[in-house]
Amino acid sequence: MDKNRILLDHGSGGKIAHSLLKEMILPLFNNDMLSRLDDGAIINIGTGTRIAFSTDSYVVDPIFFPGGNIGELAINGTVNDIAMCGGDPKYISAALILEEGFSTDDLKIILNSMAEAAKKAGVFVVTGDTKVVPKGKADKIFINTSGLGVIPKGVNLSGSNAKAGDKVIISGTIADHGITILSSRENLKFDSDIKSDTAPLNQMVKRILNQSLIDKRVIEQSPTDKCPTDSSNSASNFNYRVHVLRDPTRGGVGTTLNEIASQSNVRINIWEDALPIKDSVRGMCELLGFDPLYLANEGKLLAVVSPESTNRVLEAIRQDEYGKDAAIIGEVVGIENSDKPLERSGVFLKTSIGGFRIVDMLTGEQLPRIC
Amino acid sequence: MDKNRILLDHGSGGKIAHSLLKEMILPLFNNDMLSRLDDGAIINIGTGTRIAFSTDSYVVDPIFFPGGNIGELAINGTVNDIAMCGGDPKYISAALILEEGFSTDDLKIILNSMAEAAKKAGVFVVTGDTKVVPKGKADKIFINTSGLGVIPKGVNLSGSNAKAGDKVIISGTIADHGITILSSRENLKFDSDIKSDTAPLNQMVKRILNQSLIDKRVIEQSPTDKCPTDSSNSASNFNYRVHVLRDPTRGGVGTTLNEIASQSNVRINIWEDALPIKDSVRGMCELLGFDPLYLANEGKLLAVVSPESTNRVLEAIRQDEYGKDAAIIGEVVGIENSDKPLERSGVFLKTSIGGFRIVDMLTGEQLPRIC
Repeated sequence: MDKNRILLDHGSGGKIAHSLLKEMILPLFNNDMLSRLDDGAIINIGTGTRIAFSTDSYVVDPIFFPGGNIGELAINGTVNDIAMCGGDPKYISAALILEEGFSTDDLKIILNSMAEAAKKAGVFVVTGDTKVVPKGKADKIFINTSGLGVIPKGVNLSGSNAKAGDKVIISGTIADHGITILSSRENLKFDSDIKSDTAPLNQMVKRILNQSLIDKRVIEQSPTDKCPTDSSNSASNFNYRVHVLRDPTRGGVGTTLNEIASQSNVRINIWEDALPIKDSVRGMCELLGFDPLYLANEGKLLAVVSPESTNRVLEAIRQDEYGKDAAIIGEVVGIENSDKPLERSGVFLKTSIGGFRIVDMLTGEQLPRIC
Repeated sequence: MDKNRILLDHGSGGKIAHSLLKEMILPLFNNDMLSRLDDGAIINIGTGTRIAFSTDSYVVDPIFFPGGNIGELAINGTVNDIAMCGGDPKYISAALILEEGFSTDDLKIILNSMAEAAKKAGVFVVTGDTKVVPKGKADKIFINTSGLGVIPKGVNLSGSNAKAGDKVIISGTIADHGITILSSRENLKFDSDIKSDTAPLNQMVKRILNQSLIDKRVIEQSPTDKCPTDSSNSASNFNYRVHVLRDPTRGGVGTTLNEIASQSNVRINIWEDALPIKDSVRGMCELLGFDPLYLANEGKLLAVVSPESTNRVLEAIRQDEYGKDAAIIGEVVGIENSDKPLERSGVFLKTSIGGFRIVDMLTGEQLPRIC
């Protein structure tokens, strides 16, 4: 392994990707907003307004796959990253890098999907850019989307907020997107219910916030809150019982839970029997030798919620169009209170036969260009 | 020319790029913010706060060139696009697409340049993304930056604001970046003063706004302005005599002025003798057969200003680190008042020998991957 070359693994969202970020990028660009390491930055732009700001580039191969294409993936992905920060996504930028010779018919289909996805999510594509590189210098089309959403007062979501006793909810079946991309790439025949789960989750997040709101004065009133008596700001009088929201994309549920465990310095136990997974997806994973815990999802979220609100939040998710298969899959355990032999932060899977196994962060690249 | 394939020209910033935008993109994503066609979108996020939001992908070849590299270009480019909308750039996202096998040493140099450029411009890189694609599926490194900046009250800049009588100022010598990239790519030997002009222009824009402020009540008070008596909002009592700011990047001064003429439905006359250009750049353009009016600039701006403030604004620009060679290069003429035979909107160059020639939008791609 040449240490002086970029590897596919640097883009996996797993261990090497994290060390690239921590060793090369964070020391250079250190600031409070970036170093939170959440799905987006939370910016206080003055007058008491907080904005979630997120960016992602999409390089998925193939660009068309069962259940979607790179265009809707690019809209939904950024919509979801903003929503996971608690922002209400509204404004999206779209920047295309096209390979010379790319089919304009395919481009039209992709642009149409982007427009439809934006409409469905209730967001506006407000600014953009198009670059073309000579044939062979890119692969068909890459799309970057960035986006913005205002965060309602009192909402405070971060990977570092998980607390001992919290429950972990997944909003539906895992590994659908990952196994779809893999199967498409290998030209495998498969059941029609194997398709990408790409979907906008911002309405689901609204339901979660509504159901986890508690009537409690926020202790800290923002010092820049200039109009404290304004009725539209009444949400600032409440706090929320949802602590973390994350969409387990690259690296899957296993890697995302590891990020949360690391940011919050807690242990997360998950229960193998509780993980929702389609039979067809499970079968394909067994056939191909992939662990569904590390395969990407593009329309699912993980919610870490106070135990007293877990059932209400679960019901709220299940009422959403994209949350019918939601399930409680685990719990957060404080490290000092753990009665298990492995008293360290991290993620542990309680297997069907009763033992625990360590779920580490993804190492090595299972599947490049998954999104 | 295959009508069903993407051409390099679609990314030129010129005529075909505009028709792609107008025919394929705008009809799908139509909204007031996008259809303004300025360098970024202007978003009203409530509580009277307007934000400029802009995105650009950088695919320049070569990635290192005299005067800079792709990293600082990516920071400065988005800083400038926000500034051209009147925004005070503060928050930047950075999304990397890396080719497998790319040198981590080169990546370090580029990231360092980005950090230095951000510091110089006074902006924070607050969120990011890294994707890696297999060898041969991208060319070394592509960088997308998006960014945000709050627009001070009363500032209203747009390509559609040019008015008959306004003067056109360029902040310095033209074509430096374009000729540098071309010369580097061709391995031509050249004078040491041929180098990219990549620079952040946000401080220059602040100087321009300060000098073009007029003490005049704004007729429209924003209806969402909730704290009208707050002292920090006092700028809302002023208006500005600068109408358009644009950085003439891809497509150069010729294409950018055409965009302004088209958006404002005016005629713009420029004077060949007044255009600042380095002798070495002029010589290289003559040698290689390029028109400097269409070559990219990465650290220059065009300002369209009311005649009564032109000299003050010119002086303000000249006092800036990057504006020493600023010059008045033309004027805006209303179409109905034109006493010239060519009574239509567009851009016209008064040549050294006295005649006028039409300066059309760039057609064909002079130089792919210029930024």
